[in-house]
Amino acid sequence: MSDIELARRFRAGDIRALARAISLVERRDPSVRELEEAPKGSTAEVVGFTGAPGTGKSTLVDALVSLLRKQKKSVAVIATDPNSPFTGGAILGDRIRMQRHALDPKVFIRSMGARGHLGGLSLATREAIRLLGAFGFDQVILETVGVGQSELEVAAVAGTTVVVLTPNLGDGVQMIKAGILEIADIFVVNKADLEGHQRVVMELRGMLSLSAPRAHAAGSPKAWKPPIIPTVAARQEGIEELWAAVEAHRRYLEASGQARELAEKRLKDETAEVVAELAREQARQALGEDAGLTARLMEDGTPYRAAEEIVTRLGRGLKPPAREH
Amino acid sequence: MSDIELARRFRAGDIRALARAISLVERRDPSVRELEEAPKGSTAEVVGFTGAPGTGKSTLVDALVSLLRKQKKSVAVIATDPNSPFTGGAILGDRIRMQRHALDPKVFIRSMGARGHLGGLSLATREAIRLLGAFGFDQVILETVGVGQSELEVAAVAGTTVVVLTPNLGDGVQMIKAGILEIADIFVVNKADLEGHQRVVMELRGMLSLSAPRAHAAGSPKAWKPPIIPTVAARQEGIEELWAAVEAHRRYLEASGQARELAEKRLKDETAEVVAELAREQARQALGEDAGLTARLMEDGTPYRAAEEIVTRLGRGLKPPAREH
Repeated sequence: MSDIELARRFRAGDIRALARAISLVERRDPSVRELEEAPKGSTAEVVGFTGAPGTGKSTLVDALVSLLRKQKKSVAVIATDPNSPFTGGAILGDRIRMQRHALDPKVFIRSMGARGHLGGLSLATREAIRLLGAFGFDQVILETVGVGQSELEVAAVAGTTVVVLTPNLGDGVQMIKAGILEIADIFVVNKADLEGHQRVVMELRGMLSLSAPRAHAAGSPKAWKPPIIPTVAARQEGIEELWAAVEAHRRYLEASGQARELAEKRLKDETAEVVAELAREQARQALGEDAGLTARLMEDGTPYRAAEEIVTRLGRGLKPPAREH
Repeated sequence: MSDIELARRFRAGDIRALARAISLVERRDPSVRELEEAPKGSTAEVVGFTGAPGTGKSTLVDALVSLLRKQKKSVAVIATDPNSPFTGGAILGDRIRMQRHALDPKVFIRSMGARGHLGGLSLATREAIRLLGAFGFDQVILETVGVGQSELEVAAVAGTTVVVLTPNLGDGVQMIKAGILEIADIFVVNKADLEGHQRVVMELRGMLSLSAPRAHAAGSPKAWKPPIIPTVAARQEGIEELWAAVEAHRRYLEASGQARELAEKRLKDETAEVVAELAREQARQALGEDAGLTARLMEDGTPYRAAEEIVTRLGRGLKPPAREH
């Protein structure tokens, strides 16, 4: 499919063109960036789910997709696994549960991996989300599959971050790693029919009462207090309450002015990352072509002088922006 | 401590000056970069240990430190945990086992965390290793504590990467994640006194026989076949065999010419990362100061035009290199 053909099909609503565009984005191919420019007001709202393996995130997301479909909203699910080498729509184990939505053209499900490229997943995820918005999806659900830094990634991309816990993981709230309290806009205690559910809720309340309200840290006058929602995702219980909390959080962000603030902060962070990526690419190119530079680098034994030399050259070799502002 | 005083004490062999310099490096403070320039031939050799939690990596490293001390070598241990927010020499749980070396001035132990800064840990780790070499340590042992992308990080920094397995983790070799075969120069099957040890060794041999030899992929004529070393680290068993394997691998790298090739590749990769970091910083600064740029960014809704605008400005604002080549 040529770029022009791809763009035409994408704009005509061909889901295969969307899938192909996301594959290009995963390979850091800049050719589909024009497609990311959403018609005004068509930005997808993003809710992120994170939590330890075994908390039932996929079942929860599945239940939420069903609810949103009842509300006639189109939904895209992106499952990110920064530790997985699999990309390009590979079926992760728990994606199979999603098969009941497989024939619904208003539901799009996609796994995105990483291939060890630090920072790369986050940029690709953001690009994919813009593509989904431009394509016309109403809601995007971002789900982490792996462990590690993926929680931070979700919080950096999602407007609302849901942290999922369960009573059956032994150490209960101890499963919450340092830093997760700060990123949670909403807590879900899933499998709320299991014993120990009340204990998890109470421990969580205790931790929340001790921690500074999140918005306070961000300098906002009125703080958001993360609600704790019990669910039994496998029986579709608590899902409406969860969605009500997501919508309440969105209204809060709008009313407090944080929605725009966050959007600006995220675009700035992403721009800095894109700049870093462009610079890294140009550095690789310079080091690949300039034997003298490499010789000096090896002589130095530290990267700093070579790095400064490359930075002074940056921008010169860059082709002018594709279009006028 | 002033920069000059710090440099003086560092060069005089004051271990507190070394610790302070590593703290500065963790904060990405460039003021100690001069100290990283090792006198010729004083680069520390780096061996990295990675493996799932519970495989006894720390006990193994502890045993290796004892062996190296018997050989009168000075040893520095850096434990990296990319998922930990703790840095600055915080004592991780299993570091306590190292206390028997705590009074030995020829042993230096340090934990390095990440604070969610992608790419940052790797750069700080490399800087810390150069400081340790310049300070005069003979051997550096790099140990991953966390899970996730830390294995890749170790392999990117260490000359020799040791992957540690045990018979008692249930799924045995299945614990080996995709990609770990490619990074292992040496396999250790620790806790070799436990049942199932032979099975792990055999499974591992099977996997290795199926995979392409590592050096072959790197274009080297003679392939390195990763040996499998059984150890019982808690009883100091197999440690001499392990060290012999590390030294054999180093000789192999030297003899095949890969040592220099790898050193060049790593310095180039690091230079590209330093360039990316400098560019990211300058982008942040531009976005913080230039309201017009931010307004255009928000209007666009995508980062690409702003990023290109920033890249064309890069290098102009940069101060000249500190010294002549």
